[in-house]
Amino acid sequence: MTHTRLEAGRLTGNIEGFVGAVEIPVGVAGPLLFRGTDVQGEVYAPMATTEGALVSSATRGAMALTMAGGVSTSALAQTMTRAPVFAFSQLADACRFASMVTGHLDDLRAAVREVSNHAELVSIEPVVLGRTVHLRFRYTTGDAAGQNMTTICTWHACQWILRQSHLLADGEPETFIIEGNTSGDKKASSQAMVQGRGIRVSADCLLPAEVIGRVLRTTPDELFRGYQHIAAGAVHSGVLGSNANTANIVAAIFTATGQDIACVHESSVGQFILERTPNGVYASMTLPGLALGTIGGGTHLPAQHELLESMACTGPGSASRLAQIIAGFALALDLSTVSAAVSGHFASAHERLGRNRPAPRRQPDSPDAARTSPTLPASEAASQPNVII
Amino acid sequence: MTHTRLEAGRLTGNIEGFVGAVEIPVGVAGPLLFRGTDVQGEVYAPMATTEGALVSSATRGAMALTMAGGVSTSALAQTMTRAPVFAFSQLADACRFASMVTGHLDDLRAAVREVSNHAELVSIEPVVLGRTVHLRFRYTTGDAAGQNMTTICTWHACQWILRQSHLLADGEPETFIIEGNTSGDKKASSQAMVQGRGIRVSADCLLPAEVIGRVLRTTPDELFRGYQHIAAGAVHSGVLGSNANTANIVAAIFTATGQDIACVHESSVGQFILERTPNGVYASMTLPGLALGTIGGGTHLPAQHELLESMACTGPGSASRLAQIIAGFALALDLSTVSAAVSGHFASAHERLGRNRPAPRRQPDSPDAARTSPTLPASEAASQPNVII
Amino acid sequence: MTHTRLEAGRLTGNIEGFVGAVEIPVGVAGPLLFRGTDVQGEVYAPMATTEGALVSSATRGAMALTMAGGVSTSALAQTMTRAPVFAFSQLADACRFASMVTGHLDDLRAAVREVSNHAELVSIEPVVLGRTVHLRFRYTTGDAAGQNMTTICTWHACQWILRQSHLLADGEPETFIIEGNTSGDKKASSQAMVQGRGIRVSADCLLPAEVIGRVLRTTPDELFRGYQHIAAGAVHSGVLGSNANTANIVAAIFTATGQDIACVHESSVGQFILERTPNGVYASMTLPGLALGTIGGGTHLPAQHELLESMACTGPGSASRLAQIIAGFALALDLSTVSAAVSGHFASAHERLGRNRPAPRRQPDSPDAARTSPTLPASEAASQPNVII
Amino acid sequence: MTHTRLEAGRLTGNIEGFVGAVEIPVGVAGPLLFRGTDVQGEVYAPMATTEGALVSSATRGAMALTMAGGVSTSALAQTMTRAPVFAFSQLADACRFASMVTGHLDDLRAAVREVSNHAELVSIEPVVLGRTVHLRFRYTTGDAAGQNMTTICTWHACQWILRQSHLLADGEPETFIIEGNTSGDKKASSQAMVQGRGIRVSADCLLPAEVIGRVLRTTPDELFRGYQHIAAGAVHSGVLGSNANTANIVAAIFTATGQDIACVHESSVGQFILERTPNGVYASMTLPGLALGTIGGGTHLPAQHELLESMACTGPGSASRLAQIIAGFALALDLSTVSAAVSGHFASAHERLGRNRPAPRRQPDSPDAARTSPTLPASEAASQPNVII
Repeated sequence: MTHTRLEAGRLTGNIEGFVGAVEIPVGVAGPLLFRGTDVQGEVYAPMATTEGALVSSATRGAMALTMAGGVSTSALAQTMTRAPVFAFSQLADACRFASMVTGHLDDLRAAVREVSNHAELVSIEPVVLGRTVHLRFRYTTGDAAGQNMTTICTWHACQWILRQSHLLADGEPETFIIEGNTSGDKKASSQAMVQGRGIRVSADCLLPAEVIGRVLRTTPDELFRGYQHIAAGAVHSGVLGSNANTANIVAAIFTATGQDIACVHESSVGQFILERTPNGVYASMTLPGLALGTIGGGTHLPAQHELLESMACTGPGSASRLAQIIAGFALALDLSTVSAAVSGHFASAHERLGRNRPAPRRQPDSPDAARTSPTLPASEAASQPNVII
Repeated sequence: MTHTRLEAGRLTGNIEGFVGAVEIPVGVAGPLLFRGTDVQGEVYAPMATTEGALVSSATRGAMALTMAGGVSTSALAQTMTRAPVFAFSQLADACRFASMVTGHLDDLRAAVREVSNHAELVSIEPVVLGRTVHLRFRYTTGDAAGQNMTTICTWHACQWILRQSHLLADGEPETFIIEGNTSGDKKASSQAMVQGRGIRVSADCLLPAEVIGRVLRTTPDELFRGYQHIAAGAVHSGVLGSNANTANIVAAIFTATGQDIACVHESSVGQFILERTPNGVYASMTLPGLALGTIGGGTHLPAQHELLESMACTGPGSASRLAQIIAGFALALDLSTVSAAVSGHFASAHERLGRNRPAPRRQPDSPDAARTSPTLPASEAASQPNVII
Repeated sequence: MTHTRLEAGRLTGNIEGFVGAVEIPVGVAGPLLFRGTDVQGEVYAPMATTEGALVSSATRGAMALTMAGGVSTSALAQTMTRAPVFAFSQLADACRFASMVTGHLDDLRAAVREVSNHAELVSIEPVVLGRTVHLRFRYTTGDAAGQNMTTICTWHACQWILRQSHLLADGEPETFIIEGNTSGDKKASSQAMVQGRGIRVSADCLLPAEVIGRVLRTTPDELFRGYQHIAAGAVHSGVLGSNANTANIVAAIFTATGQDIACVHESSVGQFILERTPNGVYASMTLPGLALGTIGGGTHLPAQHELLESMACTGPGSASRLAQIIAGFALALDLSTVSAAVSGHFASAHERLGRNRPAPRRQPDSPDAARTSPTLPASEAASQPNVII
Repeated sequence: MTHTRLEAGRLTGNIEGFVGAVEIPVGVAGPLLFRGTDVQGEVYAPMATTEGALVSSATRGAMALTMAGGVSTSALAQTMTRAPVFAFSQLADACRFASMVTGHLDDLRAAVREVSNHAELVSIEPVVLGRTVHLRFRYTTGDAAGQNMTTICTWHACQWILRQSHLLADGEPETFIIEGNTSGDKKASSQAMVQGRGIRVSADCLLPAEVIGRVLRTTPDELFRGYQHIAAGAVHSGVLGSNANTANIVAAIFTATGQDIACVHESSVGQFILERTPNGVYASMTLPGLALGTIGGGTHLPAQHELLESMACTGPGSASRLAQIIAGFALALDLSTVSAAVSGHFASAHERLGRNRPAPRRQPDSPDAARTSPTLPASEAASQPNVII
């Protein structure tokens, strides 16, 4: 605990009551060949995790994508939102405010520029809800995740609003709160899927049957059939998005690269799509809102920064690059996971499972004993049933 | 990166491709006085985070709860689920299987006992969806989170099922997959809210006006009014649950104690309830599904284990204790956050904000510059607008 | 308005302030060949609607299912829920109540039997949420939808509870409300999908390529490809369930048969699944919660009762039969709708569209002008783009 | 059935296979005093329903709102959406199309004007999802609901798109479907809450304690306490929106006025907000998406048209007026329903219940027997527990 390399003096703004650090082990997955708008060539991704088989399963998926010619990626949108709420005495005042405030976008942009060189106000959208107006501010924030930056900017812009008596029916609104829970901050919400927050990113690839057979140890038909049942289960359970285990990649790379780990909650929503093609499958992964950055937050911590550098994720445009890397590996892992689930079936897997496990009653069955045997090669391990968690 | 204290040899089952570790700084929040079923007395909680002001804001909330007489907590349910899917050729076969398989709970329990001393099968629930049956297995797993353990057990139980020809209309089902996405594993879903997975836990407290004024720097009326707008915003945005920032506590304590960080996605759903009482407010926090354990996974890593020990969260019953500690601190943080949001209003906060901030254009406005000034005492800092993220 | 055949004296219990009636036109769709557990043979379904092309599109889908050998259907569950909430002064009391009340199922069943011969209490499930306990009562109600019946029963059962001082920590709970919004009554909710309310029912069929070509005017590949995009869109939009237009069938048959039309909101959730088979497609439709009955409510109104009789949906078991008929026709309509959407593509449909439409600027473009031309045969009409709404 | 006043010749565009009609009884609720942007003065609302106590409960709520000075209402937005999907061979092509198509808004507007004088294209929004682009068209459609009109317009606009070879990477997209399930048509979805479809409308009112006591037979404290538990239950159940029974009003007025009854599914989402004020309560109701019109569809049917006229809901601006009337009555009903739920408590209600009910075992307990006794005055009836369904 106390033997940390972190220097307390450099943690101002990151933590209070500092007593030490926990170490999360990092494994390297890949390589994965990217053909994205902001990332080309082979990339190895550091994953901080304690979930056995995750790194090897992601690596197996990456191998499949790479052999298929690589994964295409694109960042589709990049905005950070903050949504203060203004409460008036009645609906009519709320409507009046909502209709007038949108005419002041330029004034609000000017107010924002007074407090930040990095955040740029893109738009404001008022949402009237009874006597309140939730005012969604949408910013670009360069390569920073920008949650704090946009809070300060929005606060400052709202102070400007609160000084405009013509906007406020009878003087001040009864209440003003800097966030009314419609920005999606730290929340897994349906709105997050529909409207995104942070970086929206997609990755896709065509995989031929040969690669599916050699690397993923299944067939296009078997893989696709399994996918359909898993997708149907997600709908039935009211899952936000639809995927096998996107959260594993988001959590592992977020943790390795100094992101706000709490954002794993909102950022792990993903839509994994698989289609049968004449010669194999088409696979895509869309992550609607990765709240991440390559500057600010914990990205300056020594190991985290080193890992960002190892992926060339520092400097202008690197946030979009990091988002695309995450989307690529999330696609890789879901492909491997679903393949493991469908091919690890019946007698053969049962046998392997039995062979690798200690006699249950004699040797205590610790939770760890259930994990992947280290003596198996990675691709074998990845096809065992326990990798799908 | 490479100067880790972690020994590769002890990480079998946790990671592959091991290259080192990242350190996440740990701050200690509290004390918080508990009056829970599994935790009594003052507790300090370690939080691994890079989110500035989180620890001090949680501490401020803990102080308020403690001064109010402490937080009551209770674990309401504790089950781990795994839901394989069996696909038949048609609906009629699926119905037949669903109606018959429930009669074999004892056989399945016996099968489970063959492979685990820790997992106990509580119930099975078949869900027919067209030609498929998603079969929800529900287990108790002691103090382990139990995801892997229950995968092995369910696999073994399903092998038993697949050998019962009378259960399967025409021999084997067309497809069997160990998870069909209805268990909620690694997913933020509506089902998670309704049915839970892992430990369901509640915390509550009555806070008198005096404590609200002295510690949270607001009044019961102001606090409650702000809460209402935040709760309404959550409904409007389709948030799973309703809270201010439960994810911050779940992520920080999960990371500090060796939990599977990917489970932050599914486990951060929470329902924060505030009511106005004659003399203050009533506050409760319900977390429907904390997928956590105090044994297994990353809980054996040195610092993580030490931190579990620091909260007396090792040994029988400690998973429930840890869940209650998380619920208590999640309640504390939401109280502090909403208080900061409502009291940091208008002129005064604006002034403080201006006073503490560097002149924007002259000194580059790095993202970190937007963070809490270190010269403020914690409670002051916590009332600034930027703490609410 | 005033020339209604309805007799005011027979509407007691259905309406107050009675001034007349609206007539909703009824068309007959079908025949559809059923091979269900409660319905066999060809069935014509009455649909009360003003949505042009709905009846003919459903008929087209029914023709396809019938030519494919008929639709299999099964009612999977049938329960009506009512969920009162008891509020205590604190969490501990709520927990105590929750753990004790479940031991009194037999007493509560006896209380229910005092007030109803039809409702049978199946189970109670307490849900602790802070200081409150939502107590879900689950009943069977014969062939009645049972919303009112179970309200009375639950009220009576709760009166029994309120007299048991040992169940209530310090005398009475602070508040008791007969419904705390966790039963799903009149609500479209995620819980409705997961747990159902009313009758849960599935329908399925295998359709060969030949039928798809002749009746649905498309190919298995084209149909399936279109389905996948529509299913992906539903996930992206956070739709409850996943379908093309289940609400059309639920609304039309509910209205024709005297159901509570407000229940269209909660009952129209459906999961439509399409899979490509070697020789065509497999299609299923699962409706998780049809709140319907064949006795009670508006089922006794003359025309409505006649229409129930025309489907042999009166007498014991007829509620389940009606639910299966709805599921069968909902499957038929979704098949026809998606087929129309995918086959009405490009030049040919564009041409037809132009041919059938008046010159836009000269003749005013009334909303009705956009509807299906009456000169087209039904299957042609059904393949036009406007039918998919 | 066959004695309908509807003339088959006038139903072209509304129904096929016409065999007659069902009559739905209509009761008149109100008066309710409006002070809305498009509706002022006392309004009586026709409700077509078979749900006993609905009309009298709505009338009771209307009386309370009227005595409190009337209900304010405002239409916040009015747009109809249609969202075709274009599928390309890969993500890169989809991205290219998405970025280019938005530059052609003027061309698409021109294409729309060729086929409609009523629909006006407001905006287009491309949503990239893997290799597909869902293109959300947003229109104003005057006083028509506009679903069919906008389908035709979108179809025509898409034909224009399909002729622009520079927009399509390699000639035509693989697939084009007129609706990819992201418009929200006939779906209850989270997106509907966040983005609306049709008319978004709010209603609000301040109710003094005196009115609450005299009309709603409860106190502000009791009413508010009950509301809180009901709102918490909605969150816990994953309800879209949050209300007591908005679906009842939407269904009853939609049916009475010739709306597409299937749209009850998507249009019944509502957010009911209650706040305690020093002298009573503040109440608001926001309906995010009423898919309704006062021209087109079934609005021309004789009784339905008469009922629209009775509310002065014909002619320009009347769709917005109708939406506001629905919001006002939805607010009225929810106020009455929650009041009934909270005040119908314990001994007194129990007594009344017993007094009004037949001896259970001797007289058969038909479902109708459970309904409100006709001998009670409306306000009494409305306070009985069974009205809350």
